[in-house]
Amino acid sequence: METITVKLTKNSYPIIIGKGLFQYLKNFWPLKKGDKVMIITNKTLAPIFLEKIIFFLKKVNEKIDYIILPDGEKYKNLSTINQILTTLIQKNYGRDTTLIALGGGVIGDITGFAASIYQRGINFIQIPTTLLAQVDASIGGKTGVNHDLGKNMIGSFHQPILVIIDINFLKLLSARELSSGMAEVIKYGITFDQNFFLWIEKNINKIMKINKLTMVNLIRRCCEIKAKIVNQDETEKNSRALLNFGHTFAHAIETHIGYGKCLHGEAVAIGMIIASRIAKIMNNFCESNIVRIIKLLQLTNLPIYAPKNMQSSTYIPYIMRDKKVINEKLRLILPTSIGHAKIYSDIDHSCILNAIQNSQEL
Amino acid sequence: METITVKLTKNSYPIIIGKGLFQYLKNFWPLKKGDKVMIITNKTLAPIFLEKIIFFLKKVNEKIDYIILPDGEKYKNLSTINQILTTLIQKNYGRDTTLIALGGGVIGDITGFAASIYQRGINFIQIPTTLLAQVDASIGGKTGVNHDLGKNMIGSFHQPILVIIDINFLKLLSARELSSGMAEVIKYGITFDQNFFLWIEKNINKIMKINKLTMVNLIRRCCEIKAKIVNQDETEKNSRALLNFGHTFAHAIETHIGYGKCLHGEAVAIGMIIASRIAKIMNNFCESNIVRIIKLLQLTNLPIYAPKNMQSSTYIPYIMRDKKVINEKLRLILPTSIGHAKIYSDIDHSCILNAIQNSQEL
Ligand SMILES: NC(=O)c1ccc[n+]([C@@H]2O[C@H](COP(=O)([O-])OP(=O)(O)OC[C@H]3O[C@@H](n4cnc5c(N)ncnc54)[C@H](O)[C@@H]3O)[C@@H](O)[C@H]2O)c1
Ligand SMILES: NC(=O)c1ccc[n+]([C@@H]2O[C@H](COP(=O)([O-])OP(=O)(O)OC[C@H]3O[C@@H](n4cnc5c(N)ncnc54)[C@H](O)[C@@H]3O)[C@@H](O)[C@H]2O)c1
Ligand SMILES: [Zn+2]
Ligand SMILES: [Zn+2]
Repeated sequence: METITVKLTKNSYPIIIGKGLFQYLKNFWPLKKGDKVMIITNKTLAPIFLEKIIFFLKKVNEKIDYIILPDGEKYKNLSTINQILTTLIQKNYGRDTTLIALGGGVIGDITGFAASIYQRGINFIQIPTTLLAQVDASIGGKTGVNHDLGKNMIGSFHQPILVIIDINFLKLLSARELSSGMAEVIKYGITFDQNFFLWIEKNINKIMKINKLTMVNLIRRCCEIKAKIVNQDETEKNSRALLNFGHTFAHAIETHIGYGKCLHGEAVAIGMIIASRIAKIMNNFCESNIVRIIKLLQLTNLPIYAPKNMQSSTYIPYIMRDKKVINEKLRLILPTSIGHAKIYSDIDHSCILNAIQNSQEL
Repeated sequence: METITVKLTKNSYPIIIGKGLFQYLKNFWPLKKGDKVMIITNKTLAPIFLEKIIFFLKKVNEKIDYIILPDGEKYKNLSTINQILTTLIQKNYGRDTTLIALGGGVIGDITGFAASIYQRGINFIQIPTTLLAQVDASIGGKTGVNHDLGKNMIGSFHQPILVIIDINFLKLLSARELSSGMAEVIKYGITFDQNFFLWIEKNINKIMKINKLTMVNLIRRCCEIKAKIVNQDETEKNSRALLNFGHTFAHAIETHIGYGKCLHGEAVAIGMIIASRIAKIMNNFCESNIVRIIKLLQLTNLPIYAPKNMQSSTYIPYIMRDKKVINEKLRLILPTSIGHAKIYSDIDHSCILNAIQNSQEL
């Protein structure tokens, strides 16, 4: 069991990483026995994990209840939030309630956002069950839901009081979902840590086989990087924006194709390739680096071509709604080398269109 | 023109109070000329004030747009929020947008909440146009909307960057709305400031005639009290809760009778009388004080009887959903003398039912 602390000005919280952690819950559980707990999970996960989790939680908390949502990115919206809030009010859950997100990034984002607006803010705990949520979505307090017109357009910053990352959850995760999570892992390597990128290249086979020790090391490094960045810039005024590498294009693809049809990590993989191609024009980012990135994504079974049925010009309106747009000026995160990235603004649309076209399969 | 500053750990902001302030906008306007501004107002206020306000705003900001909502407490809900967010996305408003609330507490609460969750939080400015919003709702960053099952159940703490209180707005306010605002004014006197209570008693005739100098003094004192309390306890962990005096019962009445049918201040007046009667049992709060409170509310043309068609037992489920309930234990704000109040917990239901019954007209 390892602990990484996210240190913030107002409050700090631990990320606990390990295998079979729920046995040791009382060693790090922040609630009192009588505190009320409401678990939020989905229809896929409930039959697999809910009973076991409740069994362990009962040892540290008496009052445990749950809400089971439908599964999928397309339910990450305001209407699901309203459904959760209604249940909480109907069942008389007060400000002293703690929500628990048991699931992937979708459940985590929904639960965190519900917690942030119920009675002007209640506590929540993240129990991420996908690789993507364990390395990225569960940490740092970005919460929110999608709008038909744009991904993650509605949300807030609301930090969890605890994150529990148990790699045992990954056993049942589909290969496709594992790959999706790896896109965010590779993102950390490209934008923040060259050595980590090299390490991923070297260990990609073990990773894809979910070797336990390798996975703990991988997740720990991602959590360290993310915690450090969130410590520096909780509300994304500066350096945290670098974590959005590839995401401007990813969100355009996800919104246009329809939420859930393309996995978040798959869209991020394509987005990173497009951004790398723009970097080549903007700052002479090496072609050889682009090749290495594409190769690693390929080994991870991630898509490396932008969707054929989405014309390059189609991206523009989505891109101009990106949260990084200021004064009608698009800002993009571009790598300068493997392990470093910078924010660029005012990039020529023709350069962007070109990079998208070059990223489509011939 | 007078300025009161709300000082918070993260950010501070000014409350500007006066008459005809918009002439002098450039003296205190926090935005740059090119910054985008979206005014939120309602159908009643738009024909009266919107054109004039835009005329003045155009001198300090080039990009001004507006959204006109239907008028009424019953539109203070998630669906109106969704409507605002949709418009903002459709029109490509980014994180660099500032929302302006031009209206009473309903518009202020809606606008602040929309600002708090659009793209994880954008700036907003309060231009309160009712007495209630000028003395209370526009200050302190409580934002939110109602749920069918409970008032202000959904929301967040999100502070404005500026509050502009111009008493010229009050000229067209109906007598009933003026009285409604006075309920919150009297609340400050009972819970925090005996001298202010005495001052209100003495000046009630001038107040009801909206004497300008008297109104500026009244509003300034309310803003001072509220700013001081918010400075001490932004997120209502302690002393700020005292401002909820009367509100547990008020919210029960408003939710049960139907949002908008009874004005917020009217419900607060009744709630304060019920709470004062409970105080008599719990801490020997003087009958003579209760008589003084009732008399002042009566001179203010506020209702002094609990609604006849709402049985005392009907209050209980609403009361138990109050945001101050912890561990199924109700907490109530009760006056100990005129000018002081305290939080009491674990009050006998029979004592509450009695106080409600005693507050109904025979
Ligand atoms: N808040 C943030 O900082 C942040 C960061 C990155 C991504 N995200 C968001 O996260 C979401 C994507 O998260 P995700 O990739 O975890 O998707 P997801 O939550 O949809 O989970 C993927 C699928 O795997 C299933 N699943 C989850 N855990 C499982 C397990 N242990 N075994 C078997 N199946 C399991 C889920 O039911 C779902 O069908 C996106 O909405 C994205 O925007 C948020
Ligand atoms: N956020 C807080 O801290 C806080 C504090 C107190 C009350 N509130 C909320 O405020 C709301 C009540 O606010 P309110 O009493 O201002 O009601 P309101 O906003 O509904 O305004 C009352 C009526 O007066 C009209 N009006 C507004 N300004 C006018 C003017 N200058 N001239 C003529 N008509 C005008 C409005 O169109 C409306 O019909 C409630 O929802 C309450 O919960 C919030
Ligand atoms: Zn992501
Ligand atoms: Zn009030």
